[in-house]
Amino acid sequence: MLASTGFGATSANEPLSKLDFQRRDLRPDDVQIDILFCGVCHSDLHTARNEWGNTIYPVVPGHEIIGRITRVGNQVTRFKEGDLAGVGCMVDSCQHCSACSEGLEQYCENGFVGTYNGEEGHSGGMTYGGYSNNIIVRDKFVLRIPDKLDPAGAAPLLCAGITTYSPLRQWKVGPGQKVGIVGLGGLGHMGIKLAHAMGAHVVLFTTSPGKREDAKRLGADDVVISRDAQEMRAHRNSFDFILNTVAAPHPLDPFIELLKRDGTMTLVGAPATPHPSPQVFNLIFGRKRLAGSLIGGIAETQEMLDFCGERDIVSDIEMIRIQDINDAYERMLKSDVKYRFVIDMASLRAA
Amino acid sequence: MLASTGFGATSANEPLSKLDFQRRDLRPDDVQIDILFCGVCHSDLHTARNEWGNTIYPVVPGHEIIGRITRVGNQVTRFKEGDLAGVGCMVDSCQHCSACSEGLEQYCENGFVGTYNGEEGHSGGMTYGGYSNNIIVRDKFVLRIPDKLDPAGAAPLLCAGITTYSPLRQWKVGPGQKVGIVGLGGLGHMGIKLAHAMGAHVVLFTTSPGKREDAKRLGADDVVISRDAQEMRAHRNSFDFILNTVAAPHPLDPFIELLKRDGTMTLVGAPATPHPSPQVFNLIFGRKRLAGSLIGGIAETQEMLDFCGERDIVSDIEMIRIQDINDAYERMLKSDVKYRFVIDMASLRAA
Repeated sequence: MLASTGFGATSANEPLSKLDFQRRDLRPDDVQIDILFCGVCHSDLHTARNEWGNTIYPVVPGHEIIGRITRVGNQVTRFKEGDLAGVGCMVDSCQHCSACSEGLEQYCENGFVGTYNGEEGHSGGMTYGGYSNNIIVRDKFVLRIPDKLDPAGAAPLLCAGITTYSPLRQWKVGPGQKVGIVGLGGLGHMGIKLAHAMGAHVVLFTTSPGKREDAKRLGADDVVISRDAQEMRAHRNSFDFILNTVAAPHPLDPFIELLKRDGTMTLVGAPATPHPSPQVFNLIFGRKRLAGSLIGGIAETQEMLDFCGERDIVSDIEMIRIQDINDAYERMLKSDVKYRFVIDMASLRAA
Repeated sequence: MLASTGFGATSANEPLSKLDFQRRDLRPDDVQIDILFCGVCHSDLHTARNEWGNTIYPVVPGHEIIGRITRVGNQVTRFKEGDLAGVGCMVDSCQHCSACSEGLEQYCENGFVGTYNGEEGHSGGMTYGGYSNNIIVRDKFVLRIPDKLDPAGAAPLLCAGITTYSPLRQWKVGPGQKVGIVGLGGLGHMGIKLAHAMGAHVVLFTTSPGKREDAKRLGADDVVISRDAQEMRAHRNSFDFILNTVAAPHPLDPFIELLKRDGTMTLVGAPATPHPSPQVFNLIFGRKRLAGSLIGGIAETQEMLDFCGERDIVSDIEMIRIQDINDAYERMLKSDVKYRFVIDMASLRAA
């Protein structure tokens, strides 16, 4: 077994604290990584506090992982010691269902293995995430990180990046299109950068007038205050696609009304309590669509990383020490972060 | 002006009764039709009783019209006196917006002109529908009825037929696909016939076990009682497409759960009060889609009529006299019709 150390939760009510744990031995198709940086996703907090009711303690969160490869199994050909590597939300899947066959491991019909709080499948134990010094991951689930990218800023690409990239690609966003991004947080700021890089006219919807300037800096061509009915009305039936990153329950109709005929709004956040029910006639008059999307497959995640590498796109981050993770969670709950916390894992050695 | 006689409502609370009214003079691009048969759609009842709050009285309902052409304007080339013709839910549109340019007049950005209770646009009056002896319609909105089809049974194709045909085509239903139809009424029974004719494996969802045999006679390969959770569970993640024809508010999640990854459920009925809000995670896990669809364009309606002509597909109807229309409405409210009432307009002469 591989001795690991990291920060995790031992119950829903305790703050995260330092803990030692073990990972499986390196298998022939495994890669071992020394973790340099790990992004902080809202899912980490949900899981640490058992807000989805499925947490098995102790849990070590973190699925936006960037590190350096220190060891590879003898069947591994795509990676070697010293390579910079990334790990996202998944570390394994069945590899034989129709979803896996199409490279859509996130929809694995037998359930993908999450990077943390997942059944590890080999040692009989659980998976532990990136708030730690090292990790062992099946090579097929390890991503190459383009050399040009700032490694810390690249960490959030592994979840926030692919979660927004995948639906933008799925619905063929590109030049000549008007694309809305709802919400300017970790996901939304990546949505703006990526949709802008794909050549679309990008409009941010936010409830905060104070975010206008920053949205434009990130690449938005326009900013609409979604609580302003008049401003919203001016955009009726004009959007090809809207990516809705807001997980808090909110009315969807004001956005559906802004879609063109045959337009789609994709939701990537799942609210704890349902959104108000959308009006069916808003879908019928205009043949509009409401869809969902979950992260992205491994091949598409690599495509996204390469896309970002060619365009020097990373997340806007605030670097923290692992000792500050509990404070960071509280700030994240207040949306007090621009736009993603990333843990400098070197801080773990001082903990 | 053209003197017309028909059955209509003069207020929301009165039964339909005989009334005389006038239609515009024949214009150069108009077609005049003696009406033989008119289907009875639930929208007729909603409008007669002002249940959508937009009825201008007197109103003469009816938008599933089959008749014989008696006169054509001097610019009309596609039709001649004596032709069998059909008129559906629309009698005009702007003809220059992007929707009209693509043959999608039902989504006309300036609003299509409804066959009844619409602003007629030429004489300054309103449009009056097919519960009458004749009608004048712009030639572009007149459909050819294949000779092989029973004219009475073809009447409901003009609304119930195209409303189900269009989304089945839009989402490319065909051989090798498993397609669900929710609800066995006027729309649902056409959905079964059309999806079956397109080569799909068709499953009817109904709350009424008594409809099982009839659904199979209509072309369903399987029937699932949607209140039976165990029966529903056996079909999880297996449907390519579901056409939901039920307008009464009902939970959508049990159907969304049955869609395959990337599957779509299209709603063609708009409930008076919202459906319970669907769970977003049901859309996210599987990248599923909820969509709407409204009737179909004129070109697609002609395509549907030709499709039905080649396969001898018509609606299952119960013929009534116009004098029985108020009773028919009451029976329609109890779903006591298999599966569409059609008025024999010859009865009007005896009224």
